[in-house]
Amino acid sequence: MKGLVYRGPRQVAVEEVDDATIEEPLDAVIRITTTNICGSDLHMYEGRTSVEEGKVLGHENMGIVEAVGPAVGRIRVGDRVSVPFNIACGTCRNCTSGWTSFCLRTNPTEGMDGAAYGYANMGPYDGGQAEFLRVPYADFNLLSLPPGDQFEQDFAMLSDIFPTGYHGTELAEVSPGDSVAVFGAGPVGLMAAHSAFLRGASEVFVVDKESDRLDLAKQIDALPIDLSAGNPVEQIMDQTHGRGVDCGVEAVGYQAHDATGEEHPELVLDNLVEVVRSTGAIGVVGVYMPNDPGAANEQAKQGRIGWEYGTFFSKGQRMGTGQAPVKRYNRQLRDLIIDGRARPSFIVSHELSLDEAPAGYANFDARLDGWTKVLLHPGQ
Amino acid sequence: MKGLVYRGPRQVAVEEVDDATIEEPLDAVIRITTTNICGSDLHMYEGRTSVEEGKVLGHENMGIVEAVGPAVGRIRVGDRVSVPFNIACGTCRNCTSGWTSFCLRTNPTEGMDGAAYGYANMGPYDGGQAEFLRVPYADFNLLSLPPGDQFEQDFAMLSDIFPTGYHGTELAEVSPGDSVAVFGAGPVGLMAAHSAFLRGASEVFVVDKESDRLDLAKQIDALPIDLSAGNPVEQIMDQTHGRGVDCGVEAVGYQAHDATGEEHPELVLDNLVEVVRSTGAIGVVGVYMPNDPGAANEQAKQGRIGWEYGTFFSKGQRMGTGQAPVKRYNRQLRDLIIDGRARPSFIVSHELSLDEAPAGYANFDARLDGWTKVLLHPGQ
Amino acid sequence: MKGLVYRGPRQVAVEEVDDATIEEPLDAVIRITTTNICGSDLHMYEGRTSVEEGKVLGHENMGIVEAVGPAVGRIRVGDRVSVPFNIACGTCRNCTSGWTSFCLRTNPTEGMDGAAYGYANMGPYDGGQAEFLRVPYADFNLLSLPPGDQFEQDFAMLSDIFPTGYHGTELAEVSPGDSVAVFGAGPVGLMAAHSAFLRGASEVFVVDKESDRLDLAKQIDALPIDLSAGNPVEQIMDQTHGRGVDCGVEAVGYQAHDATGEEHPELVLDNLVEVVRSTGAIGVVGVYMPNDPGAANEQAKQGRIGWEYGTFFSKGQRMGTGQAPVKRYNRQLRDLIIDGRARPSFIVSHELSLDEAPAGYANFDARLDGWTKVLLHPGQ
Amino acid sequence: MKGLVYRGPRQVAVEEVDDATIEEPLDAVIRITTTNICGSDLHMYEGRTSVEEGKVLGHENMGIVEAVGPAVGRIRVGDRVSVPFNIACGTCRNCTSGWTSFCLRTNPTEGMDGAAYGYANMGPYDGGQAEFLRVPYADFNLLSLPPGDQFEQDFAMLSDIFPTGYHGTELAEVSPGDSVAVFGAGPVGLMAAHSAFLRGASEVFVVDKESDRLDLAKQIDALPIDLSAGNPVEQIMDQTHGRGVDCGVEAVGYQAHDATGEEHPELVLDNLVEVVRSTGAIGVVGVYMPNDPGAANEQAKQGRIGWEYGTFFSKGQRMGTGQAPVKRYNRQLRDLIIDGRARPSFIVSHELSLDEAPAGYANFDARLDGWTKVLLHPGQ
Repeated sequence: MKGLVYRGPRQVAVEEVDDATIEEPLDAVIRITTTNICGSDLHMYEGRTSVEEGKVLGHENMGIVEAVGPAVGRIRVGDRVSVPFNIACGTCRNCTSGWTSFCLRTNPTEGMDGAAYGYANMGPYDGGQAEFLRVPYADFNLLSLPPGDQFEQDFAMLSDIFPTGYHGTELAEVSPGDSVAVFGAGPVGLMAAHSAFLRGASEVFVVDKESDRLDLAKQIDALPIDLSAGNPVEQIMDQTHGRGVDCGVEAVGYQAHDATGEEHPELVLDNLVEVVRSTGAIGVVGVYMPNDPGAANEQAKQGRIGWEYGTFFSKGQRMGTGQAPVKRYNRQLRDLIIDGRARPSFIVSHELSLDEAPAGYANFDARLDGWTKVLLHPGQ
Repeated sequence: MKGLVYRGPRQVAVEEVDDATIEEPLDAVIRITTTNICGSDLHMYEGRTSVEEGKVLGHENMGIVEAVGPAVGRIRVGDRVSVPFNIACGTCRNCTSGWTSFCLRTNPTEGMDGAAYGYANMGPYDGGQAEFLRVPYADFNLLSLPPGDQFEQDFAMLSDIFPTGYHGTELAEVSPGDSVAVFGAGPVGLMAAHSAFLRGASEVFVVDKESDRLDLAKQIDALPIDLSAGNPVEQIMDQTHGRGVDCGVEAVGYQAHDATGEEHPELVLDNLVEVVRSTGAIGVVGVYMPNDPGAANEQAKQGRIGWEYGTFFSKGQRMGTGQAPVKRYNRQLRDLIIDGRARPSFIVSHELSLDEAPAGYANFDARLDGWTKVLLHPGQ
Repeated sequence: MKGLVYRGPRQVAVEEVDDATIEEPLDAVIRITTTNICGSDLHMYEGRTSVEEGKVLGHENMGIVEAVGPAVGRIRVGDRVSVPFNIACGTCRNCTSGWTSFCLRTNPTEGMDGAAYGYANMGPYDGGQAEFLRVPYADFNLLSLPPGDQFEQDFAMLSDIFPTGYHGTELAEVSPGDSVAVFGAGPVGLMAAHSAFLRGASEVFVVDKESDRLDLAKQIDALPIDLSAGNPVEQIMDQTHGRGVDCGVEAVGYQAHDATGEEHPELVLDNLVEVVRSTGAIGVVGVYMPNDPGAANEQAKQGRIGWEYGTFFSKGQRMGTGQAPVKRYNRQLRDLIIDGRARPSFIVSHELSLDEAPAGYANFDARLDGWTKVLLHPGQ
Repeated sequence: MKGLVYRGPRQVAVEEVDDATIEEPLDAVIRITTTNICGSDLHMYEGRTSVEEGKVLGHENMGIVEAVGPAVGRIRVGDRVSVPFNIACGTCRNCTSGWTSFCLRTNPTEGMDGAAYGYANMGPYDGGQAEFLRVPYADFNLLSLPPGDQFEQDFAMLSDIFPTGYHGTELAEVSPGDSVAVFGAGPVGLMAAHSAFLRGASEVFVVDKESDRLDLAKQIDALPIDLSAGNPVEQIMDQTHGRGVDCGVEAVGYQAHDATGEEHPELVLDNLVEVVRSTGAIGVVGVYMPNDPGAANEQAKQGRIGWEYGTFFSKGQRMGTGQAPVKRYNRQLRDLIIDGRARPSFIVSHELSLDEAPAGYANFDARLDGWTKVLLHPGQ
């Protein structure tokens, strides 16, 4: 079968790779109808990870069940399914507590809880930017979708970024009537803003410096805050009569840049501490790394970020972090799509064939204007 | 009346001060039967705060209601009461949400939510290390106690450290069956350990290097971890078969010292991130400051602590912080004392008259062996 | 001043009554700009309660602060405010736990926790269908509104029915993505449906037999279920592929009627047990009475309702009940109105002067077509 | 192999039955070391259910893994395990939400969610009062225990009654400092009382009329209430200064008897509504049936119970019901046993061989004095 393979920094290629097959009795094989390029794929693409050459990339997958192992009973061949990016066993302590993003059994990497498809350090699993994908523990992991091709773009957001954005609002404890500040208007930040409204937020600020992204925020009634036009904390304070917001979401990660483009890993955390009211909660779904050899200073190389912790304590704030347990949210988000209450596809900018994927990576990595979210359709 | 007054670094004196009186219709005046010296009083005593000279200290107070203002209706003269250290209005958004430690109305200090008695930056209120104390919003703030003098030592813990330790376990989400690591075996840490067991913890580790404190931990069935005998994280990992603990409590604060006595503000946070399992929660009730002019480096002076944030994220941990809203817990803790299920007085080491208070401060500050908790009885 | 006074079954009159005045230091007096007739006022109007003749009715009130007592500090003369129907002291155990609807101090009636304005058994308080209203514990009870007259109709829903409908969805544990069945399309039921969507429900069924009310349900995207057209449980089962709904809300009360108009107090509870899925929750805000002398059978006279309890248990369902603690929700709902996300005024059908109130009562009680919600403006 | 087989009302026999074998790839076979007779087994024994003749009884099982199917990966042959009475698939919506007691896939009985071993209406599964037991979905369902035979009696409580009693306290929302009333001092009621203390209850009343059971309640510091000595509600009201309790647990079920021995299915529910304070919660784990052909009146035959619902509403109480999802609690309760904080075996009165089981049933059913809990050891 054909798959998109990592070949070194800024080198990906569509190649003939080993077929995805049933290896364990609980496996399924999925024919991929849609698979997305994720912002986090660019970390690997840019060569800032230890991902092995030859690995098939792609953790945002959906498609049709092509085959199932002999112990699979709930899922059937022909089912249309969304594949959560987390690979979870369904029987360990973390999985049975709802933390599929920290499965204790599926990732053999020392010291890492949680596995994923086609990703550095997340276990020996190939990704879904390919014709087919092997899915372990299929009965537990797969989410059923209505047959046909309706809502394909919306459902494509269910494997990662929609639940990830939603998880940010869950960790930030967004409740009806709350005001929310989301830092980062990339796909995850926009999904967080969309989720905040679904949870009943009264107003949502979205902070970024790219006008195409801020326009998308506006499109869903969020209030865009252009950080290139001035300190975002002051802008939000002004618009909230000096009170700040009830909840904050971090959707940027350790490669945060200031308005001039300089990297400041502590910048967004500082802004959140300042802009969130006392006793408020902050949800962090932007990625921070335990170690980052490419970082600017010694502290950051060890994954240490010297942010305004004393103020965080003085304000009695709370913070939740980490990769989203997709399965905790995807059924509900699917139902909101079906009933017409959620439309996460508003961020989709490009749909390509698998053969066009290498060009897609290059353009997305170059952050060409308007390239907000790229979908691949290997089956076409 | 007589009160213990701050007169400059390491100088406190018992002096004649203005009588506590009813100033507002919702005030009460309390005759103090017991008032404690708190570890946090030593910050002021040592001159590391901006507290004004002439201020009466003391925020851990209990006694008998001597007088009430004309609008007081629930509390009556003669009632025996515990006075939460937080001064709360009872009607602002934070108070009515249960966050009396972040009252929006009682502290006129710019940028500070929450007030307290006899404390730096917490508003213009004198403390209770005196014969009498003025209590604002008495109906809301005061907790009724059974008449008489039974449980006086136990009830004396209700104004601050017992609820504060309990708040640490609440922020750490301690549930029945959990394993817990408490860093710091001072009064708050010991109260956190006691609280963890009240909430059903199966095992509680308490980390410190002072043997008298570790002995107290042992006395309540906690597992003492002597950090002077080796890395506490490794010791706990060994005793948990490499799994670490479910919950962590920080009861040390920004003046954390390593085994050699050197100050490392990030040390305890690092230890907690390492020893708490993925998806676990950490409660921080040890104090961190928005700025600390006396700190060792530039970053710490701004209240920035460069701890292992990348690992915190990778493990999907959560963290809650801040001063305890005493009122949320003190009624329940009182009832546990009355029914013989809680005995927080196990930490009390000394009981002094008000006149002996200056000597008590000096000995407690010198951390003389066995000086774990000092109670003053102004009325004797 | 003028007030609408109860004079016996189906007799109300606008009369000169004693002026509302400051009686206690924490009181405020409100000049009423809008006060609504509530469905529950009709219980008194119809003579099915023990309410005293001469009482001024009206518990859904808003207006401008005319005067405050000497201990009032947060609220100021001239403030525009919403008055929750619960009269709460703000300092008892229930109030400080957020249960202002069960205040332990404001209702002297034996065995009743919780007080209200102008209502049978809810304490000696006159109502607000008058020029002025006395409000006890004003700092605690009153909700500030933006000055002016914007959103007057929407804000008028904040004193009772919008929070009451919302409380139904809270007790029913409505979360994003859930399907919900609301029984009763009166004002409270419609507010519950509106609230369910604000909390992220994916689909909401509303059951009634009056077409004007079902049309209003449709107007907010709810799915109307006409019980006069067939068994509502079967209709909902059909529309949910036999699965039933996740959450149920009871907004009818003990005077439930079947399609033929016969009274069956157990009918709606039975329907809810059948239509809610196993493990689902039911919120009951329709009123049931501890005793009801006018009931059809001996059991119902004692407040006993023989509903399908065995099935309730077998399905592992949960149920929450009781009057809404308005203060727990009204700030957030106010903000949703201000930000344009909530529009509870869609149910308002009539606006009358105080002098027109007796006619309003008569028409509303006769359930004339289109008389869904009546607002009075005493100040006009 | 040998198994205890139901042969008709009050007839059980130890017979040679078909061996338990691996039938599905996710099955395990357990060699039973301990299996208990449950009070609910007596419903079948007495002939009040539709259980088929020939069925092997027994749903409280533990033992050693003898064999595993080819898709089992977490559990290994030789593991010592506790078998939750619920048979759960681990992948349906209810299982993945933590409601294994309402599994949507394992029980083919029309309209019933949730399956169990050796039980009427709970699916075609034989029980564990036998030498061996077949366990479906073994990786998901089985709880690992430390090897050896330590704590065998305590661990034997983990398959049903300890988690069931605990579930009662969870549904009743028991929190630290609460007062609790448990109705019923049978094994489940005593486990609820034990659990209430583990969760930090300050005082626990246990209501029954059998002195041997009340003595056991006393043994764990609960306050025994002998209903044969007077109205239990009045007794508890007297002991709580008229305030009642914060939480109530129902551990009796539909066959409640008054002090004279007459059956009153509504009696315990009425008592709970009266004795629990306004806004309090009630957890119901005593069994109520959707229909009960043997009931005294027409209403009860349809599973309708006419209890004081109007008072329930007026007090704003909440109620949760249903079979316990054992897996949600058994790991934590196991750890409390291992760490010496829980000792559920205090209720065990008899240990018998499998051959003695028929006599055990007869004596337990006759409720001979001191026959509180019977354990069988098929392996001896």
